[in-house]
Amino acid sequence: MRACATTGVVAAWNRTLKKTSHSFSAASSSCALLGPNRPDVWVLRENTFPYNHFQESLQCANGHNAAILEGKSIAKQIKFKVADEISRIKSCMGKFPRLGVVLVGDRRDSHTFIHIKLKACDQVGIETVVAQLPEKCTENELLGAVSRFNDDPDLHGIIVQLPLPQHLDEEKVINVVSPEKDVDGFHPLNMGNLAIRGRKPFFIPCAPKGCIELLLRHGVEITGKRAVIIGRSKIAGLPTSLLLQRHHATVSMLHAYTKNPEQITSEADIVVADVGFPNMVRGNWLKQGAVVIDMGANQVKDPSSQGFCVTGDVCFEEAVKVASAITPVPGGIGPITISMLLSNTLDSAKHAFGMV
Amino acid sequence: MRACATTGVVAAWNRTLKKTSHSFSAASSSCALLGPNRPDVWVLRENTFPYNHFQESLQCANGHNAAILEGKSIAKQIKFKVADEISRIKSCMGKFPRLGVVLVGDRRDSHTFIHIKLKACDQVGIETVVAQLPEKCTENELLGAVSRFNDDPDLHGIIVQLPLPQHLDEEKVINVVSPEKDVDGFHPLNMGNLAIRGRKPFFIPCAPKGCIELLLRHGVEITGKRAVIIGRSKIAGLPTSLLLQRHHATVSMLHAYTKNPEQITSEADIVVADVGFPNMVRGNWLKQGAVVIDMGANQVKDPSSQGFCVTGDVCFEEAVKVASAITPVPGGIGPITISMLLSNTLDSAKHAFGMV
Repeated sequence: MRACATTGVVAAWNRTLKKTSHSFSAASSSCALLGPNRPDVWVLRENTFPYNHFQESLQCANGHNAAILEGKSIAKQIKFKVADEISRIKSCMGKFPRLGVVLVGDRRDSHTFIHIKLKACDQVGIETVVAQLPEKCTENELLGAVSRFNDDPDLHGIIVQLPLPQHLDEEKVINVVSPEKDVDGFHPLNMGNLAIRGRKPFFIPCAPKGCIELLLRHGVEITGKRAVIIGRSKIAGLPTSLLLQRHHATVSMLHAYTKNPEQITSEADIVVADVGFPNMVRGNWLKQGAVVIDMGANQVKDPSSQGFCVTGDVCFEEAVKVASAITPVPGGIGPITISMLLSNTLDSAKHAFGMV
Repeated sequence: MRACATTGVVAAWNRTLKKTSHSFSAASSSCALLGPNRPDVWVLRENTFPYNHFQESLQCANGHNAAILEGKSIAKQIKFKVADEISRIKSCMGKFPRLGVVLVGDRRDSHTFIHIKLKACDQVGIETVVAQLPEKCTENELLGAVSRFNDDPDLHGIIVQLPLPQHLDEEKVINVVSPEKDVDGFHPLNMGNLAIRGRKPFFIPCAPKGCIELLLRHGVEITGKRAVIIGRSKIAGLPTSLLLQRHHATVSMLHAYTKNPEQITSEADIVVADVGFPNMVRGNWLKQGAVVIDMGANQVKDPSSQGFCVTGDVCFEEAVKVASAITPVPGGIGPITISMLLSNTLDSAKHAFGMV
C-alpha cells in the first residue's frame, strides 16, 4: 500500500469572502448576526492518527475492497445522450445550444479546466463563445462581458471560470449572471431555490448534481441515511448538503471549526469530501461500509516522476479497504461534473427553444 | 412534575410543496435529482422512551435546573431601541417606516399573529397598511395586492401571512415580493444569500435571527459547537441551520426521515426544535448541559381549564433538568421574532431614506 502523502500539517483554504452589491443590511447588528467571516483553515492532527495504529485497525477489517464508483463511463453515457439530443434538435429545428465562457487572467489551472470544458462542448455539439480578459481587467470590463452574454438571445448558458483575480469581486460578478443562464448554478437565486424544499432552481451546480447522479445510478439509498459533508464551498460542499437534504438524508456539515471531524464522519453512511486538501480524510475516519464521494482534485508532486499528479481529499488506498463504495480521483466526480455542465446547457437551450 | 402531553403518536407536518414560477428545470432528470417531495411525518416512538425510564435517568442528573433564556425582556429592549430610532428619524426627517401586511382568509391563528404584529408596529411607530383578501380570492388578486405594495415607494416592508389557502401557490406569491422589501426573509434570493458565506441577504428571517440574537445576548459560544436542528421548515429550521453554520457551528439537520433523532440530538451542544409538534423533544434526548432553543408554538388543550394553551416542541419540564439553558414557550423565541420584524422593517426604511 502506498502511504498517503499530506503536503503539510496546516492547509489554508483561502476563499476570500467579499462584499456583494446584493446587500444593504449593513447595520452592525445584522453583520454580527450573520456571523464572523473566517477562512477555513484545516488543522490536521497527525498525532491522533499514527499510521501504525491505522494499519492495525485495518487488519480488523473484512479484507474486502470497496466498489469503485467510476465516473467516466457514466459521464460518457450522459454526453452521448446530450449529443444525440442536440443532433436531433439541430436536424428538426436547425438550432443548437451555445455557451458563453468568461475567462480572466492566466492561471494555469483555470486554462486547463476551460480547455476541458470547451472540448467537451465541442464533442456534443454545443457552440462556445469565449470572452478572455486580461489579469488586470477592471470590474466594469468583466461585468460588461457578462452583460453582453446575458443580452445575447442566442446564448443559453454562461460560466465565469473561478477563482477570479483578487481585485475582482467574485460575488458581484455572479450576481450579474442572469439566473436563467447560470448553468453553474452559483447565483444566489438558484442556491436559494435549491435550499428551499419544493422549489426548483433553474440550475443545480454541476459537481453536486454529478454526485447525486452517481449515487442514484449506482443505486445508493439516500433517504434516511446519515451523510457527512466535509468542507462547505459554494461550488461543492454547500450545494451538495442542500441536495442531499432534499433527498432526505440526515446531513451534518463539517468544516475547519469542527472539533471532532473524525468521530462525526465515522457515524456517516455517506461521506462527501470537499476540503481541497490531499488525502485529509483517512481510512479510520470511516464507518465500515460507508459510501465515499471524493470531490477533491488536488495537484501534488508525483514521487515516482518529476511531474505532478491529481489526488483527492480522501486517502484512497486506506478508504478503499473500509468503504463499501468510493469514487476514484481522477475519474470519479470530475468527468460527471463536466457532463452536468453540458446537460445544464442543453436544458437551458431547450427552454429557450420552447421545448420545456 | 407535570407529565408532557403528546397529542398523538403520529404528527403529520403538512406543508404542501408547490410549483414555483421561478423554474424551468422541468426535465424529468432534474426533478429526480432534486429528490422526491415528501411531507415530513414524525413518528414518535414512545416505546423507546418509556416515561418511567426517563424519570430514573433524571435522578442521575445533577439536580440543577437550566437557566431560562427569557425572550420577553430582550424583545422589550429591542423594541425600545427601534422605537427610539424611529422617533429620532421622525423628528429629523419627518419620515417613518411603513409595513404592508397581506392577509388572506379567516384562519384564526393567522388573524391572531397579524394582530400581535400590528400592535407591535403601532407601539414602535411603524405605520401598517393591511391588504385583507377573502379566503376564495384568486391568485391574480393576491399577486396584484403584493405588486401594489412593491410599487409603493413609501412602503418599506411587506409580509404575507402564511399559510395561504390551498388553492394559492405560496412560493409563487413569495417570488413576487420584492427581495428589498421582504422583511420576512423568505424570498429565495434572500435565502440564497443567507446560505452562501460572505454574502449578505437583504433580510434574515425573523425567528432564526431572533434565535441567534438570543444566543449572542446570553453569551452562548457558537463557533465549533455541535448544533442539531430538529425540523426543516423554511421559516425556522432551514434558515436557522444556515445562520448557525455562518457562526461556524457544526450543524446537523434532522427531519422526519432521520432514523435516530434522539441519539444525534444527544450529541449536540445546541439543540433547536422546529417540529411543530408539542413536547416531541424529551429530556433524555438531550446531553447534560445542552442549550435548548424551542421554536415551537403549538396550541394544545389545557387540562386545567376548558381552553387552550401554547406549548413548545420541547418537553420543558423534562428538558429544564438536563439543559444548561432553555427558552420557555411562551415568552422565549416568540417575542424576539416579533421584535426582529420591527428591526428588519426599520432597516429597510433606513435604506430607503438613504441612511445606510
